[in-house]
Amino acid sequence: MPQQSIGEQMYGWATDLFPYCRSITGPGVRQTLQYLRELLPALEIHEVPSGTAAFDWVVPDEWTIGDAFVEDAQGNRLLDFRKNNLHVVGYSEPVDCWLSREELEKRLFSLPDQPDAVPYITSYYSRTWGFCLSHNQRKTLPAGDYHAVIDSKLAPGMLNYGQLLIEGKEDREIFLSTYICHPSMANNELSGPVVTTALARWIGQLPGRRYSYRIIFIPETIGSIVYLSKHLPEMKRRIEAGFNVTCVGDDRRYSYMPSRQGDTLADRVATYVLDAYVGDYDRYSFLDRGSDERQYCSPLVDLPVVGIMRSKYGTYPEYHTSLDDLSLISPAGLAGAYDALRKCLQVLEANSTYVVTNPCEPQLGKRRLYPTFSTLETRQKVRGITNFLAYADGTLDLLQMAKAIGVDFFECAQIAKTLLGHGLIVGVGRREAE
Amino acid sequence: MPQQSIGEQMYGWATDLFPYCRSITGPGVRQTLQYLRELLPALEIHEVPSGTAAFDWVVPDEWTIGDAFVEDAQGNRLLDFRKNNLHVVGYSEPVDCWLSREELEKRLFSLPDQPDAVPYITSYYSRTWGFCLSHNQRKTLPAGDYHAVIDSKLAPGMLNYGQLLIEGKEDREIFLSTYICHPSMANNELSGPVVTTALARWIGQLPGRRYSYRIIFIPETIGSIVYLSKHLPEMKRRIEAGFNVTCVGDDRRYSYMPSRQGDTLADRVATYVLDAYVGDYDRYSFLDRGSDERQYCSPLVDLPVVGIMRSKYGTYPEYHTSLDDLSLISPAGLAGAYDALRKCLQVLEANSTYVVTNPCEPQLGKRRLYPTFSTLETRQKVRGITNFLAYADGTLDLLQMAKAIGVDFFECAQIAKTLLGHGLIVGVGRREAE
Amino acid sequence: MPQQSIGEQMYGWATDLFPYCRSITGPGVRQTLQYLRELLPALEIHEVPSGTAAFDWVVPDEWTIGDAFVEDAQGNRLLDFRKNNLHVVGYSEPVDCWLSREELEKRLFSLPDQPDAVPYITSYYSRTWGFCLSHNQRKTLPAGDYHAVIDSKLAPGMLNYGQLLIEGKEDREIFLSTYICHPSMANNELSGPVVTTALARWIGQLPGRRYSYRIIFIPETIGSIVYLSKHLPEMKRRIEAGFNVTCVGDDRRYSYMPSRQGDTLADRVATYVLDAYVGDYDRYSFLDRGSDERQYCSPLVDLPVVGIMRSKYGTYPEYHTSLDDLSLISPAGLAGAYDALRKCLQVLEANSTYVVTNPCEPQLGKRRLYPTFSTLETRQKVRGITNFLAYADGTLDLLQMAKAIGVDFFECAQIAKTLLGHGLIVGVGRREAE
Repeated sequence: MPQQSIGEQMYGWATDLFPYCRSITGPGVRQTLQYLRELLPALEIHEVPSGTAAFDWVVPDEWTIGDAFVEDAQGNRLLDFRKNNLHVVGYSEPVDCWLSREELEKRLFSLPDQPDAVPYITSYYSRTWGFCLSHNQRKTLPAGDYHAVIDSKLAPGMLNYGQLLIEGKEDREIFLSTYICHPSMANNELSGPVVTTALARWIGQLPGRRYSYRIIFIPETIGSIVYLSKHLPEMKRRIEAGFNVTCVGDDRRYSYMPSRQGDTLADRVATYVLDAYVGDYDRYSFLDRGSDERQYCSPLVDLPVVGIMRSKYGTYPEYHTSLDDLSLISPAGLAGAYDALRKCLQVLEANSTYVVTNPCEPQLGKRRLYPTFSTLETRQKVRGITNFLAYADGTLDLLQMAKAIGVDFFECAQIAKTLLGHGLIVGVGRREAE
Repeated sequence: MPQQSIGEQMYGWATDLFPYCRSITGPGVRQTLQYLRELLPALEIHEVPSGTAAFDWVVPDEWTIGDAFVEDAQGNRLLDFRKNNLHVVGYSEPVDCWLSREELEKRLFSLPDQPDAVPYITSYYSRTWGFCLSHNQRKTLPAGDYHAVIDSKLAPGMLNYGQLLIEGKEDREIFLSTYICHPSMANNELSGPVVTTALARWIGQLPGRRYSYRIIFIPETIGSIVYLSKHLPEMKRRIEAGFNVTCVGDDRRYSYMPSRQGDTLADRVATYVLDAYVGDYDRYSFLDRGSDERQYCSPLVDLPVVGIMRSKYGTYPEYHTSLDDLSLISPAGLAGAYDALRKCLQVLEANSTYVVTNPCEPQLGKRRLYPTFSTLETRQKVRGITNFLAYADGTLDLLQMAKAIGVDFFECAQIAKTLLGHGLIVGVGRREAE
Repeated sequence: MPQQSIGEQMYGWATDLFPYCRSITGPGVRQTLQYLRELLPALEIHEVPSGTAAFDWVVPDEWTIGDAFVEDAQGNRLLDFRKNNLHVVGYSEPVDCWLSREELEKRLFSLPDQPDAVPYITSYYSRTWGFCLSHNQRKTLPAGDYHAVIDSKLAPGMLNYGQLLIEGKEDREIFLSTYICHPSMANNELSGPVVTTALARWIGQLPGRRYSYRIIFIPETIGSIVYLSKHLPEMKRRIEAGFNVTCVGDDRRYSYMPSRQGDTLADRVATYVLDAYVGDYDRYSFLDRGSDERQYCSPLVDLPVVGIMRSKYGTYPEYHTSLDDLSLISPAGLAGAYDALRKCLQVLEANSTYVVTNPCEPQLGKRRLYPTFSTLETRQKVRGITNFLAYADGTLDLLQMAKAIGVDFFECAQIAKTLLGHGLIVGVGRREAE
């Protein structure tokens, strides 16, 4: 059997995870985390009890959903949770009642503008119940009595999340966050956890890893808030750059979500990679935020976290509907996002600041870094090296050096390696300004 | 009798004040201040004796003008101060003599390019005398002998100015300055004192006034210099923003005169109000200055003082001539400037800096600030509130917040009020950098 | 005999110096320095022994070249050093051997794209030998045996340079550097030393000279490195602005080479002079550097050194070939560069920072700086003076003042002189930020 490409592997994991009925709590989350632990044996699965305070929030009761359906008087199941878990409003309270067509109407959600799509609706913090369906189906429901059943449980339980800590030479950290709280949807959300898993496996095998990595799989919003409430001081101290991994599965455009400050190391890395290796992409404003960067970049938190996405949440027509299914994502789409994010990590691992060891240009010739005969042509050949030396004043990291001298980042890193080998430069500590 | 609009009120005051023969000193100034004290009972009228030193200057002798005329040999009054007080050069010394047509010529001022206008000319610090007239009239003066009479007095006396201090909750001050030293001219100058008077009356009734207000009615140049020489340290300590109120009466364009620094709180407020509520206006350079901003923004003084005007002094054809009369200004013109300046004061009163009380987004739902069902549409509804919270990091005042999140200043102020009420933000001290 | 223009004088010196066979060491350098000492009697000629360490470098052996030729079997001299000293590769080791046409080929340098030009080639730090010739000549060389002779000596000796220190009132320095290491080429290099010599003579007679001047005539690269290795601390402490003087002889465009920082006093002066008095010129990036700014602006050295050139080295077709001869430069070309550089020195001598002595505008009238009658026209007349006073807050030097108020630098300097005379401003110390 031929080896699968990384894109096909990720797509396979997404296919496995697609049917699970995730929410911000409950068995679907645990089932997902257990699946991921098969791929990432060091993944820790944590649990936080309902009622635990987290900043302004409290961990809600756990939601368990067994079955849900609407049937007509003849017992025909018109809406069936088992066929599509989007049919039930997330966090619906249990119900078993008969309603008229008019009464049922108040419990239904559909999208007139997207009549084939079943919308994704939740109500985590306000007790209610309801059903979602396509607008086309809604229009066909005849008058008559309906039997609505939701076999759910809302009771004190646990909020679960996964945490994977990978140690590097330094305790400074790169942070990856992705979420596992949406039922059967593919670009938002399963692309996130599968790309993050693939990245985590790559990081785990990265030789000479410099940074430590903090990688979390959480329910969106409440999960990041709970996680921050437990780890904020150490995260502030350690994290140099972070990425919120979401909407990384389709084949369309690349997108960039800046941090609130807009110029952190994470922003500089992400825009460098997108500019240099993707080229054309959509650059959003932090005002367009909508995922966990809302927490990571909030005032008093202010972590350097950005997003590199394919089609951004909220901008593509299938978003938060049943149309965001496995046909929307692809091995190539997943692999493209994986490559861009991995490139960011490679840049971060290699990014350093250097200063020359001597005033004036060094004598390159005696180190065989300079050709014997000085002609216009040969002089241009060593221009990369001499430009690097001319700007290595201890204030520019390699990302800034690459821009200053117009040379690709990884080529700069190669020049740095050569010059370090000859003792012509030394690295200088340069902790990113807050 | 129907209530007058504010524009009509101001126009009425200007009409009353128009005939007074003001100069930098003398009875016309006092007469004007007494009139204004009828409207502003708390107005203090100060006097500074001739000979008093003020920085590089000395308060000059007081000028009293009774009558002035030029008559021909037949006793026909060709130029008559009583008909138009612009006919006599301001601060003319007394004279009573006969001159030939040729000798008279050296004492006459007219404008060949504006042959119908009588120019406004003064000579405060160099003793001389003269008459102003229209160029058309000048051309008709026949040869012959002329009797020139100026019944004036130049003698030690007083320089007068008015000061109105209105206390607020804080001793930090907003500063308004206008001048009362020009004879019968309307846009420059009577629009200034009448708009300032209307603003002062509005301020006096402003509920919950936060700032204290320092409002002065002074002779231009020597008056602002004298006032600064007496009050500079406390003004430097207290004044947060100031406005030089001049040329605020005609119906034409709005104009903006920046402070020398160009980015003080006063500049930010004025440009916000003009951008948001006026739209199209003339933005001048400090190099185009010409009124008391020359003193307030001079080196070693450096107060944050700007000007919002209608047609700026020196730019409209009627400026400093008899054509700048009551027909040039209008109730609507005055009211427009009054509205813009009052908006600036409202912005200043409401402008504060806030910081969130918790890391991460607060839970808006439990405070009924967030709708029950999370859909794309409802999420956009609370975007103003969440954007405010996302940027409330204690570094942006509301003016900067309004720009950052693209929401009108007063709507931002309303959001702030709501969030303060819920304890989700607190105000932080943020004294404008010098 | 009519007096020569400064351009003709410089051209005459270049004509005298043209035939000398300069290199980075050797008799040609000393001969050149002795010639210059005739023009600049205070010029000190220094020597540094071979083997002396200078940062990463070591002063090489001295090269003495007596003769060099290639002759055919019939004794016809095909290439003759005595006819054109570019024919021998600089720093060629001695040789006297017979070669076949094929063996000779490896020792020849020509330019296929410029078939009439003899290229200029050196090999200072790697022992070899070779000949340069036009490509047209190369193509005519028949098969057969050739006799190659280079009568050179490479042995411990001296590296020479000239230093001229001219004291001013202050020990802060202006720095001029030019090089004397190229054989018979005119724009690069003889224009450099002759323009520098003319500037030095002008500086020597400058009345009331404020700055001290450090002027050096050095071999390029190794000379500047050696000089810096002996003088860096005092240069860092004293030098306010410097100019690397090269390629200042032709009639074509003016060029500007910024310092690495790009905004030093030297940059501000050079761009002001070029903008105000030249207008259209080529503005290069520091990435285009190629002369001794490579050393002066290197990290850990970081001196404020820029270049004002005519056609920049490396950009004109005759560069580093026999075509860069006396026909390429002209008295007018040299004089243009001389004028631009002298203007820079005049700006530097006059550039100061001032602050007013009083808050508020001073009373200009009592100092006869203001006209008696205040009209629109007369007010505009004193605008230069009042604008200067309005911006003289102790933060702007005259270069910045000139830009701020839109008045020519030297007119600003004249205003400053007037205001200083009236005690209305005082100079403030303002050492350029590093």
